Amino acid sequence: MNSDRRPSEDDLVRLIRTRAARPGANGVSRSIGDDAAVLEPSAGTLLVATTDLLVENVHFRRRWAEPADIGWKAIAVNVSDVAAMGATPRWALVALACPDAAGRDEVEAFYEGALAVCDAYGVVIVGGDTSASPTGWTVNVTLLGEAVAPLLRSTARPGDVIAVTGSLGRAAAGLAILERDQAPPGVPPAALAELTEAHLRPRPRVAEGRWLAAAGGVTAMMDLSDGIATDLTRLVGESGTGATVDLHRLPVADATREVAAALDHDPTAWATGGGEDYELLLACERGAFERLRAGLDTSLGTALTAVGEIHAGRGVRWIDADGRDAVVAAGFEHFSRA
Amino acid sequence: MNSDRRPSEDDLVRLIRTRAARPGANGVSRSIGDDAAVLEPSAGTLLVATTDLLVENVHFRRRWAEPADIGWKAIAVNVSDVAAMGATPRWALVALACPDAAGRDEVEAFYEGALAVCDAYGVVIVGGDTSASPTGWTVNVTLLGEAVAPLLRSTARPGDVIAVTGSLGRAAAGLAILERDQAPPGVPPAALAELTEAHLRPRPRVAEGRWLAAAGGVTAMMDLSDGIATDLTRLVGESGTGATVDLHRLPVADATREVAAALDHDPTAWATGGGEDYELLLACERGAFERLRAGLDTSLGTALTAVGEIHAGRGVRWIDADGRDAVVAAGFEHFSRA
Repeated sequence: MNSDRRPSEDDLVRLIRTRAARPGANGVSRSIGDDAAVLEPSAGTLLVATTDLLVENVHFRRRWAEPADIGWKAIAVNVSDVAAMGATPRWALVALACPDAAGRDEVEAFYEGALAVCDAYGVVIVGGDTSASPTGWTVNVTLLGEAVAPLLRSTARPGDVIAVTGSLGRAAAGLAILERDQAPPGVPPAALAELTEAHLRPRPRVAEGRWLAAAGGVTAMMDLSDGIATDLTRLVGESGTGATVDLHRLPVADATREVAAALDHDPTAWATGGGEDYELLLACERGAFERLRAGLDTSLGTALTAVGEIHAGRGVRWIDADGRDAVVAAGFEHFSRA
Repeated sequence: MNSDRRPSEDDLVRLIRTRAARPGANGVSRSIGDDAAVLEPSAGTLLVATTDLLVENVHFRRRWAEPADIGWKAIAVNVSDVAAMGATPRWALVALACPDAAGRDEVEAFYEGALAVCDAYGVVIVGGDTSASPTGWTVNVTLLGEAVAPLLRSTARPGDVIAVTGSLGRAAAGLAILERDQAPPGVPPAALAELTEAHLRPRPRVAEGRWLAAAGGVTAMMDLSDGIATDLTRLVGESGTGATVDLHRLPVADATREVAAALDHDPTAWATGGGEDYELLLACERGAFERLRAGLDTSLGTALTAVGEIHAGRGVRWIDADGRDAVVAAGFEHFSRA
C-alpha cells in the first residue's frame, strides 16, 4: 500500500499539525512548526520525563506489526513509564525514521496509531522529527508528565508486600503467536486476539498508577517492561533490599495458559521473563495491601495480586509450588539478541 | 577498537550514572535508574522541548564520524533548537541504538562526546534508552530548556531586517572535505580543521540566543539547520510574510571560500543550501539592528550580519551582486536522498 513517496519533513509537519496539540490548550503554548515546543507546566508539580526507542527487527517485525501498531506501542511504552510513577502523562515528542519505500499512507497510519493512544490517555503530541532510514523503521518517543509526589523504585522496605496489577505473560504469549506461521492448534480465536492485542497494543496502567500513588501505603513502584525477573531485581537493587516471590502466586490469564499448553511452553517462564506486559509492580506496607487490592478492584476493576515480600538482603529468591527454591532465567531480551 | 561486547542496558545505566546528573542539583530530583526522570522546573518559566534523530548514513557516516563526534552532534543540534528560542538548555534524554559489534569503548566514547557538549552548555543528562540495532548507529536526543519569553519563528513583520550570526556554509564545506578521499589541494590544514570541526562538532549559539532575546528588538528567530534557503522560507511562511535576501551580503568565511575554490564549488550555494551551520537566523526591528550588531560583538565577539528584509507577500526573493533576481536551490537534503 505504498501509494506515495515518504512525505518530506515539511509535508509531515503539515500532516501532524492537523492532529497535534493546538496552542492555547492542554498547557501548550507553541507546538509543531517552531524550533521547539513551548509548554506551561502546572504550578507546584514536578516534571516527569522518559524516552524509549523502538527499532524494527529488535522490538517489532513489520511482518506482524502494522504502522498503526508501531505508533500505538511507541507512545504506550512511554506512557507506562510515567504511569509507573503515579504521574499524569501530558506531552509527547515523536521522532520517526522510516525507509523511502514507506508510503504516505503508512506514515499517516503510524501517526493515527500514535494519536489513538494519545487520545485515550489525554496526551498531546507537541513536537517531533522525521528522517529517512537506510533500513527499517525506528521510532523514538519522549513523554513528559507531571506529578506532585512521584513513586520511585528505590524506596521499598523490608516487610513490604510485593504486588502486581493485571496478569503476567500475556504479551509474551502474544509474541509467540505472532512469530508463528500458523495459529496454535485448539486455542479459541478470542484468546488469540486477546494475547496478540496485549503484545501489539499495550494499555498502560495510568489510572491505576495515579490511584495507587494517591491511596497511600505504596512504598515503591515501577512498570513491568522486561519481565518481573529482571524488573524486580532492579527494584530491590535500587532499594537496597532483597525479595522472595512465590511463583505459583503470579497471576497468569487463562488465555496465556491455553496458548502455553498448545505450544508446550511453560506459562510461568512467560510470566517471569516474557516482558512487555506493562503492568505495575509495586511494594506496599503489609497492612495496606488488602485496602489497596479492594480499592483498585472497586474503583477501576483492576486486579492487584500479592506475589511475595521484600526483606533484608539482596537479589530475588524464587519459590515454587512445593516450597522449594527455583531458578528463574533473567527477563526479557529483545528477540534479535535471543 | 571493539574491545568488548556492546554493554547491556543495566551496564549502560551504571556507566552513565557515574557521569549523569546527580539528584539534588541542577533541578534534578531523580535521574537515571528510575522509570522516568523527575525534574523541578524553575518557577515562572515556560518549558521548551525539542527532539532530533540522527541516523547513520543519513546524517553521518562512521567512516568520518567517530562515536564521540556522534554524541557531540546529537546533543548540539538539539541545544541549538533551544538556543534559537533564546531559551536556556537544561536537561537531555539520550536514546542510543547501536550494532552488537560496537564495543564498550565506542559506547563510552559516544557518551563522553555527548557529555563534553553538555558540560560546555550547562546541560545534564537525566535519562535515556539503549537498544541493539540490526544495522547502524541511531541516536535520538530530547532537550528540555526553560525560557521566560521564548522567541518564535512566526512573528516577523514587514520592514524588519533579516540577520544571521557567524558565517554560513562552513558545515557544508566541512562535509565536502570529509566525503573526499583526499584533502582539497592547496588549502591550509588550519582551514580544513576549522571546517571539518564545524561539521562534526557544531557549537550552538546559546549565549547569543539568550542575549538577543533579552536585548529587545528581535521579532522572530530560528536556527539554521537546513540552510537559509529552506529555513528562511519556513520563517516567512510561519510569519505570513515575504522576504528579500541579497546573496552577496551572506557572510562566508575565508576558509569556506578557499575550499570552494579548490573544489570548483560555488560558496554561495553552500551558504544558502548547505545546512547544519547552526547559526541563528533572526528578524529584528530596523532601528534595532545596529544596536544588536554592536552589542553582540562587544558582549560575545559574535558577528551579526544583515542580509535582507521582511516585506509583505510570500516566499523568499534572492538578489545577486548585480541586483538581478537569482534562483536558489532548496536547502539541505540529507545526503542519502541527494
